[in-house]
Amino acid sequence: MRRKAVTRSRKRAPHRSQPGAPPGTLVSHHEGETSVEVIAYSSSRFEVWEETEIERLVAKCDAFDVVWINVIGLADLDLIRLIGKTFNIHQLTLEDINNIHQRAKYENFEEYDYFITRMARFDADIENRIETEQLSIILMDKFVLTFQLIEVDCLDPVRRRLKEKSGLIRERGNDYLVYALIDSVIDHYFPIVDQLGDRVTDFDDALQKDETTVSAIEVHQVRRELLSLARLIRPHREMLSRILREPSRFSAQTRLFLNDCMDHALQLGETIETNREICSDLRSYHLALIGNRTNDVMKTLTIVSTIFIPLSFIAGLYGMNFEYMPELKWKLGYFAALGAMAAVAVSLLAWFRSRGWFGT
Amino acid sequence: MRRKAVTRSRKRAPHRSQPGAPPGTLVSHHEGETSVEVIAYSSSRFEVWEETEIERLVAKCDAFDVVWINVIGLADLDLIRLIGKTFNIHQLTLEDINNIHQRAKYENFEEYDYFITRMARFDADIENRIETEQLSIILMDKFVLTFQLIEVDCLDPVRRRLKEKSGLIRERGNDYLVYALIDSVIDHYFPIVDQLGDRVTDFDDALQKDETTVSAIEVHQVRRELLSLARLIRPHREMLSRILREPSRFSAQTRLFLNDCMDHALQLGETIETNREICSDLRSYHLALIGNRTNDVMKTLTIVSTIFIPLSFIAGLYGMNFEYMPELKWKLGYFAALGAMAAVAVSLLAWFRSRGWFGT
Amino acid sequence: MRRKAVTRSRKRAPHRSQPGAPPGTLVSHHEGETSVEVIAYSSSRFEVWEETEIERLVAKCDAFDVVWINVIGLADLDLIRLIGKTFNIHQLTLEDINNIHQRAKYENFEEYDYFITRMARFDADIENRIETEQLSIILMDKFVLTFQLIEVDCLDPVRRRLKEKSGLIRERGNDYLVYALIDSVIDHYFPIVDQLGDRVTDFDDALQKDETTVSAIEVHQVRRELLSLARLIRPHREMLSRILREPSRFSAQTRLFLNDCMDHALQLGETIETNREICSDLRSYHLALIGNRTNDVMKTLTIVSTIFIPLSFIAGLYGMNFEYMPELKWKLGYFAALGAMAAVAVSLLAWFRSRGWFGT
Amino acid sequence: MRRKAVTRSRKRAPHRSQPGAPPGTLVSHHEGETSVEVIAYSSSRFEVWEETEIERLVAKCDAFDVVWINVIGLADLDLIRLIGKTFNIHQLTLEDINNIHQRAKYENFEEYDYFITRMARFDADIENRIETEQLSIILMDKFVLTFQLIEVDCLDPVRRRLKEKSGLIRERGNDYLVYALIDSVIDHYFPIVDQLGDRVTDFDDALQKDETTVSAIEVHQVRRELLSLARLIRPHREMLSRILREPSRFSAQTRLFLNDCMDHALQLGETIETNREICSDLRSYHLALIGNRTNDVMKTLTIVSTIFIPLSFIAGLYGMNFEYMPELKWKLGYFAALGAMAAVAVSLLAWFRSRGWFGT
Amino acid sequence: MRRKAVTRSRKRAPHRSQPGAPPGTLVSHHEGETSVEVIAYSSSRFEVWEETEIERLVAKCDAFDVVWINVIGLADLDLIRLIGKTFNIHQLTLEDINNIHQRAKYENFEEYDYFITRMARFDADIENRIETEQLSIILMDKFVLTFQLIEVDCLDPVRRRLKEKSGLIRERGNDYLVYALIDSVIDHYFPIVDQLGDRVTDFDDALQKDETTVSAIEVHQVRRELLSLARLIRPHREMLSRILREPSRFSAQTRLFLNDCMDHALQLGETIETNREICSDLRSYHLALIGNRTNDVMKTLTIVSTIFIPLSFIAGLYGMNFEYMPELKWKLGYFAALGAMAAVAVSLLAWFRSRGWFGT
Ligand SMILES: [Mg+2]
Ligand SMILES: [Mg+2]
Ligand SMILES: [Mg+2]
Ligand SMILES: [Mg+2]
Ligand SMILES: [Mg+2]
Ligand SMILES: [Mg+2]
Ligand SMILES: [Mg+2]
Ligand SMILES: [Mg+2]
Ligand SMILES: [Mg+2]
Ligand SMILES: [Mg+2]
Ligand SMILES: [Mg+2]
Ligand SMILES: [Mg+2]
Ligand SMILES: [Mg+2]
Ligand SMILES: [Mg+2]
Ligand SMILES: [Mg+2]
Ligand SMILES: [Mg+2]
Ligand SMILES: [Mg+2]
Ligand SMILES: [Mg+2]
Ligand SMILES: [Mg+2]
Ligand SMILES: [Mg+2]
Ligand SMILES: [Mg+2]
Ligand SMILES: [Mg+2]
Ligand SMILES: [Mg+2]
Ligand SMILES: [Mg+2]
Ligand SMILES: [Mg+2]
Ligand SMILES: [Mg+2]
Ligand SMILES: [Mg+2]
Ligand SMILES: [Mg+2]
Ligand SMILES: [Mg+2]
Ligand SMILES: [Mg+2]
Ligand SMILES: [Mg+2]
Repeated sequence: MRRKAVTRSRKRAPHRSQPGAPPGTLVSHHEGETSVEVIAYSSSRFEVWEETEIERLVAKCDAFDVVWINVIGLADLDLIRLIGKTFNIHQLTLEDINNIHQRAKYENFEEYDYFITRMARFDADIENRIETEQLSIILMDKFVLTFQLIEVDCLDPVRRRLKEKSGLIRERGNDYLVYALIDSVIDHYFPIVDQLGDRVTDFDDALQKDETTVSAIEVHQVRRELLSLARLIRPHREMLSRILREPSRFSAQTRLFLNDCMDHALQLGETIETNREICSDLRSYHLALIGNRTNDVMKTLTIVSTIFIPLSFIAGLYGMNFEYMPELKWKLGYFAALGAMAAVAVSLLAWFRSRGWFGT
Repeated sequence: MRRKAVTRSRKRAPHRSQPGAPPGTLVSHHEGETSVEVIAYSSSRFEVWEETEIERLVAKCDAFDVVWINVIGLADLDLIRLIGKTFNIHQLTLEDINNIHQRAKYENFEEYDYFITRMARFDADIENRIETEQLSIILMDKFVLTFQLIEVDCLDPVRRRLKEKSGLIRERGNDYLVYALIDSVIDHYFPIVDQLGDRVTDFDDALQKDETTVSAIEVHQVRRELLSLARLIRPHREMLSRILREPSRFSAQTRLFLNDCMDHALQLGETIETNREICSDLRSYHLALIGNRTNDVMKTLTIVSTIFIPLSFIAGLYGMNFEYMPELKWKLGYFAALGAMAAVAVSLLAWFRSRGWFGT
Repeated sequence: MRRKAVTRSRKRAPHRSQPGAPPGTLVSHHEGETSVEVIAYSSSRFEVWEETEIERLVAKCDAFDVVWINVIGLADLDLIRLIGKTFNIHQLTLEDINNIHQRAKYENFEEYDYFITRMARFDADIENRIETEQLSIILMDKFVLTFQLIEVDCLDPVRRRLKEKSGLIRERGNDYLVYALIDSVIDHYFPIVDQLGDRVTDFDDALQKDETTVSAIEVHQVRRELLSLARLIRPHREMLSRILREPSRFSAQTRLFLNDCMDHALQLGETIETNREICSDLRSYHLALIGNRTNDVMKTLTIVSTIFIPLSFIAGLYGMNFEYMPELKWKLGYFAALGAMAAVAVSLLAWFRSRGWFGT
Repeated sequence: MRRKAVTRSRKRAPHRSQPGAPPGTLVSHHEGETSVEVIAYSSSRFEVWEETEIERLVAKCDAFDVVWINVIGLADLDLIRLIGKTFNIHQLTLEDINNIHQRAKYENFEEYDYFITRMARFDADIENRIETEQLSIILMDKFVLTFQLIEVDCLDPVRRRLKEKSGLIRERGNDYLVYALIDSVIDHYFPIVDQLGDRVTDFDDALQKDETTVSAIEVHQVRRELLSLARLIRPHREMLSRILREPSRFSAQTRLFLNDCMDHALQLGETIETNREICSDLRSYHLALIGNRTNDVMKTLTIVSTIFIPLSFIAGLYGMNFEYMPELKWKLGYFAALGAMAAVAVSLLAWFRSRGWFGT
Repeated sequence: MRRKAVTRSRKRAPHRSQPGAPPGTLVSHHEGETSVEVIAYSSSRFEVWEETEIERLVAKCDAFDVVWINVIGLADLDLIRLIGKTFNIHQLTLEDINNIHQRAKYENFEEYDYFITRMARFDADIENRIETEQLSIILMDKFVLTFQLIEVDCLDPVRRRLKEKSGLIRERGNDYLVYALIDSVIDHYFPIVDQLGDRVTDFDDALQKDETTVSAIEVHQVRRELLSLARLIRPHREMLSRILREPSRFSAQTRLFLNDCMDHALQLGETIETNREICSDLRSYHLALIGNRTNDVMKTLTIVSTIFIPLSFIAGLYGMNFEYMPELKWKLGYFAALGAMAAVAVSLLAWFRSRGWFGT
């Protein structure tokens, strides 16, 4: 029922500029295609198309209230620089988009709001291992730009809601779209946290049944993943709290929804912390179990040895080959020796009982 | 006297919308009846009835100062949507009412104040296991709406006080009713915390009498429940502190009472923390006890082995069958050997005493 | 020199109203007499009398600047309700006076300031066990009311100073009297904290002399008492800090004295924390000692066994009764065997020495 | 593959004034040359030269927008005092420049802003050991002064960017130069933190493969270096946060870049904390592994001893030389004894199996 | 090279007033002389004399800009009361001066600023043990008053600078003198912290060379002293931070110097914390070492026992004296037995090797 815990190194190429490089340096770390998906809509219209001719793209967008430009793949740096130039994006933001190992954050520029979020999913190959992708979101007056290295399915539900006009999403502005994206990213942490939480519960149940087949290593692995989840969630919480506190491009109506999103981030954080603490308690409990067992094993050894070693000594005594050993000639010598042995064994057993070594 | 610690998995269906679903999606997680109890009163009048015809309900309420609409069961989503529409409740609030695994919180909407509290009780089947139910409270200008999945007896004392006109509750407005509900929820944590605290005291007493029948697992279980209690109480404290700090629908008079409620929440939090720390100390103490015992057992084994192994060696030596072994022919060989053995044993015993191995 | 550590359960009847009871419910938890001591004074006059006729009491007080009404015993709820009514005390305050297991606090009501403090003393029967009594203080424009379940000697020094006109106490108003009471309560923590600190120092000294007669249980007990002291002191600190921060009935002059009191509370808190940390360090150190000793014992056993077990094997070998064993016939067989044994023993000893097992 | 962990003491001469010395005392702790490198530039001009004639230096600088005076070596106190006098530097700043073991900080003087940063690099001789150098930066209206004891390559990338006019650095003022220096210092922490993080990952991987060749000492060493990195990074974060919060000589444009720098400092801090916690978890896990192994070893010993000790006793019994031992005469005595031994062994094995000692 | 760790109890007479005593009570805890040293100076004049006639002292001081009155010894309470009256010192301050076990603090009175600092030095008799003396400083418009129980050499450097007119001290006002005193007190913590830090480094180095001669007790002692240093430094930091934040008698110029002092306090605090954490890590590492060693010892015992116990059993078997044992008659019985023993030994060794028990 339980997959074998595979272990693989988590060392990674850091995808970072050289130390001391000028800020805004775009270094090509990434390979593969770069595609641009455009999703444009008003309450009554909805269109999706692929477009890499940026100028034409902008021209086509006049007919819509909101235009979401979703860039997938970061290999084509020229395209990214062109988008940057077209939409007036600061070089530091471009660098952040390209450096995909950053904390979630919110930055307010004059011409746009910039958000980094991290989408999490389980690694396909290794049990309980979490992988993350960076999703950069730029909220402008009409456009929403998103950038990601790999197409991850976090955004599918939002695409579907736009297409099917489900909920309010088509009636509201682009700030609501950004909310919907952030909310979807955060919502996707729940199944991950739940699955790790279930593992913790499995461990707890197994230990309580005194099954030590629960190897300490699995507790250790889950605790490490929970740690990295905690480190991922906290910056999202800070990001949301800053959005709610500071003036920004979000309307009062959308802020109510972001508040709901904050609720979820808080709940995630707490569930993670609780599970981390339970893991730590399980570890302590496991140590106590091990200690108890060693004690148990030692008691068995000690009882057996302590009883038989003196008996064997007596036997060895009368196995000696001295010519003059009076007891050996006695008629009842053998039975006297057996009696002495029994007496020694019984009194040792009584002494052990008096020390409580036979209770559990 | 002590019930056997039963262990049962705490995995649970999370009762949550799909990740990325539009906010305000009401998904039917729940089964069973949905009933609406109406408790309407003024200082001089008091009436209780069941009603599911919401329009008629509102019409009947003109004659009362305060109307408490208590919805029990969340299966009938159409009814809940109808209530939402009638009383102008935001879709996010409706979603929160339906998603029953949330932290306590307070939210201020234009038309109402919204509170989530969590009622705790012991699980009926498993010793020391705590279960919680979410109680959603909406405070409007005249109405108080409450929502819960299962009828829990936390609210009975308030119902009784209303009916028997005991205390001030019938003289005050609906803000006082909300206070009375929150206070009753928090008051019901006391017997739970006390019972767990008594368990901790039992453990402490038993360990101090050196009884190790106190299994580490029970300390572990109680500590885990205390952790989940701490996680439950903290958001209530934050909720009360925000109510006391921010302007809201509560009158100055009622705020005095909420302050008293805050006292109790603080006291609960501290008692829980104290007990958690004592559990952690008990765990450390238990480890030390185990270590001491292993030490004790090993000392016994070592003393016995170290004395008898050389003696047995001497006995073995003279049990050898070499043809030419001069000692074997000596008249007093046997007694010399016995004497040598006694000398070895006595000097080993003296050495052990000098190392203090016979003191406790 | 050291009293035997007596152990007694600390479970207690919680003396609380039923969960959900109306606030201000006075439930009779307490038995025995309720007496009212009146201490009335001006700079030049001083009078003490017992009085339970509250109306007469108030009438008699006109002639004094400050009147301290000290209620001892909480059994007579009618008397307490009458005092409440006479002096316009809020029902929540009356409830707090009667519920004697609360944290220290300060509450500002329109007609009075209300303080809860907790007086600590050592239990008469059990070593190092701390007991506390709640002292409720009400500061009105002229009157000071105090309530306590049992007469504790914390207040004696204040009574004496009033009577003997020592210091400034008779020259100042009733706010100074309240300061003097709070100061006396806090001052009485010092000998308790000092005594526990001396115990910790005893443990430290004993462990450093490698005396393990210091049982882990005593460290555990002292640490638990220090924990409960820390929990007692902290709310007093919060109380004083709020008094110093917020406007209240205390004059600027008296605030200087309250500041001195705050100093003492800070010092108590720090001494307790220091001692708690030392206890925790001692525990770790004790564990290391135990581990070292087990290691020591094991080394002894291993050295002895590892040397004699092969020797005994050789002896056993030549104790076999095979008919054809050539060595047994050799003239020097016995001495060759002894020589082989000596060689084995010497090389094993050399090997142990090379591994450093003979150093401490 | 893994270099042997070399260990060397980290005691160091503190390079500090005598306690109680007057502030501003410059004590000569340092030896060697003191050289002054001048890098002067405008958008269109760029010049580098060595100069120790301070007056001439200042005269030559009129033709440039920004002048960076980089002092390498702190032995020539007269030169440093002269620079201090020429540029109006406070004696406390001169003392800080000379005392090279200080925390990163930012101080605002009337005539300049003063920054201390610490450049880190790996020790050349000892694996995983970190060394730091203090870089003092003074930002004046036109000049930037830097002071360091040893030439470290942190500043090379900035020099190169100035020379090659790469990025914006030549277009911006001297505040941007200071940003570029601070940024380069902080950027150079990344490879260090990454390398230590890779060590932690190595340990984790090795432990998970149950390889205990990962010696506890290496975890201990890495954890200590991470601790000192954490202590180094935190003051940089405080420094940046103060620069961003308070008015200073930095333009709004440059502040955007400093904010990016702050991002990196935050990320460093978090990566370090995560790795420290993983180290601590690894330590706990390692302890559990050791406990498990001791348990395993003990179980083997106990099983073997507990089975053979009784058998040997039986053998010893019939090795006794009593004249009258009836069993010895029995025809099948020997086989009966063998049978009894087999029965004892089998029942002991069954008992061990029933206790689960043969499962892992 | 290492002095033997001497252990001595640290219990002490608390030198405190009775609980509940009136504030300002001066109780004579101290013995010995009380002397008054007067150091009066202007930029051009400097005089030192002893004086106990307070009135004459004040009269003589008109000719100087700054007068420092240094009271050494606290036995002569009448003198202290007289000084109090002459300089208008509040009774609470007099009590604080006399109660010499207080935290560092800063209090602003109308007529003076009052500072408590604690001077630390190593105990003369016990290695690594720290002792502290309280230095009370009163800063008035012209006078600086200091009070100490014992003459400690912290103040010597300041006296010398005044006399030799070194640095700025004679040019500045009495606020600069107070700064110089506080700075000297804090500077004197550096050699203490450095020495303890060197001890920690010694321990670290020794453990890394696997020398366990580093007794756990010394780590424990050093960690305890570091704890008490941390408790001493923190209030100094709070004191300096309050001085820098609040308006006081310090000029803007002197505040720059106090800021430098704050730097040093911060650095002290961090070094102490770092060393405390390293101690805690060393303790954990030491525990792991012990566990490893026990494991090692046990493995040796188990290997030897597990091999020889079965061999001895075989030998014992053929040492039995049954009349009918066919193997004993076999020509090659003895060699067959030897062969069987070798086979058992070899296969056990192979099994141990397969479990990795021979790797370190
Ligand atoms: Mg950079
Ligand atoms: Mg960036
Ligand atoms: Mg991250
Ligand atoms: Mg959500
Ligand atoms: Mg991470
Ligand atoms: Mg919600
Ligand atoms: Mg812990
Ligand atoms: Mg959602
Ligand atoms: Mg929610
Ligand atoms: Mg919850
Ligand atoms: Mg309550
Ligand atoms: Mg929970
Ligand atoms: Mg109350
Ligand atoms: Mg209360
Ligand atoms: Mg209540
Ligand atoms: Mg309490
Ligand atoms: Mg308590
Ligand atoms: Mg004082
Ligand atoms: Mg006091
Ligand atoms: Mg004081
Ligand atoms: Mg100095
Ligand atoms: Mg400085
Ligand atoms: Mg530093
Ligand atoms: Mg950077
Ligand atoms: Mg450092
Ligand atoms: Mg960045
Ligand atoms: Mg006092
Ligand atoms: Mg102190
Ligand atoms: Mg101290
Ligand atoms: Mg200094
Ligand atoms: Mg730790």
